[in-house]
Amino acid sequence: MAKIITQKNGTRKDVIIQKAAALYKSKSYTAASMRELAESLGVEAPSLYNHIGSKGELLEAICFRTGNRFIDQVRLISEGEESIVQKLEAIIRFHIRMMLENFDEVFVANHEWKHLQEPFLSDFLNIRRTYEKSIIDLIQQGIDRGEIKPLNPYVAVLTILSAVRGLEFWQRNKKNVSQQVLENDMVNHLLNGLTT
Amino acid sequence: MAKIITQKNGTRKDVIIQKAAALYKSKSYTAASMRELAESLGVEAPSLYNHIGSKGELLEAICFRTGNRFIDQVRLISEGEESIVQKLEAIIRFHIRMMLENFDEVFVANHEWKHLQEPFLSDFLNIRRTYEKSIIDLIQQGIDRGEIKPLNPYVAVLTILSAVRGLEFWQRNKKNVSQQVLENDMVNHLLNGLTT
Repeated sequence: MAKIITQKNGTRKDVIIQKAAALYKSKSYTAASMRELAESLGVEAPSLYNHIGSKGELLEAICFRTGNRFIDQVRLISEGEESIVQKLEAIIRFHIRMMLENFDEVFVANHEWKHLQEPFLSDFLNIRRTYEKSIIDLIQQGIDRGEIKPLNPYVAVLTILSAVRGLEFWQRNKKNVSQQVLENDMVNHLLNGLTT
Repeated sequence: MAKIITQKNGTRKDVIIQKAAALYKSKSYTAASMRELAESLGVEAPSLYNHIGSKGELLEAICFRTGNRFIDQVRLISEGEESIVQKLEAIIRFHIRMMLENFDEVFVANHEWKHLQEPFLSDFLNIRRTYEKSIIDLIQQGIDRGEIKPLNPYVAVLTILSAVRGLEFWQRNKKNVSQQVLENDMVNHLLNGLTT
């Protein structure tokens, strides 16, 4: 029986999670089956159950792995010595890269979290709130220090996170724009605006 | 049998379209039925068929009415005498107001257009492309005149339209932010940035 092939630096479970994210994104969580996941891994379904209990367990893994990466990164950046604007820039760049380089997992965490069971659902929503709140707090600090305009911090975070999430549209029909231009121009726009 | 009540300045068909948009948004187009639409209008289904042939016809009406409002507005604004930045501001403000004041129809046009039949599907996608292209062209004009930074115009439009579309999240759990603050701060952010 075929073994699950691991990529370098990836555990067997990492590979399963990545394949599950690709499957849940293309078919939706509801429509995807463990049999299809086993097929995409090139193994028999019973062999897959040696590693993973259910498709719900994989959804939890995708959502929390992704959510925790965002939380950890924003915490790490917030603790640094840079200016608030530099911290905000680092957070936006990280978020854009996650949308570009870990798109399957971020997409599933953004769209399929509704299918999490309790207590995971509440925990995941807490992670999202914590993430948003961290950026709102950072923007408020920037306003207090005069680095950032006195805009409503909630509206600023909604604008930033929605713009970055819009990279979904770019992923769907990739235009003739490099990842580097996409990242630099979006960061520049969101921090410094369009006008000269 | 009950008559379909019209609001002032609204034709009977306008009322039907608005109720259909509310229903398609809350239940999804696929799950909604003409019977439910008739119920929400307080009429019998056969009476509804005097005005409308099918639920697909209503989806077409919602998508094209909304799409054409965007196209007409951007054309009208583009023809004016204002600066490019002023025109861009007017377009963003119009788009934000559509998201706030005609949310059901805009939401259905944004999410349920996939269910349009041909040739309506292609026509609708053409309207969307025309709309995006008009704003891309306007930004390019702004860059050529030195009013707008030399950012990639496609990325700028992606950033703007995604940010505005993010008002969906605000609609879901309205935070303690007025429509006026939402509109002014988002426009200011997208045109002039966050940094002081």
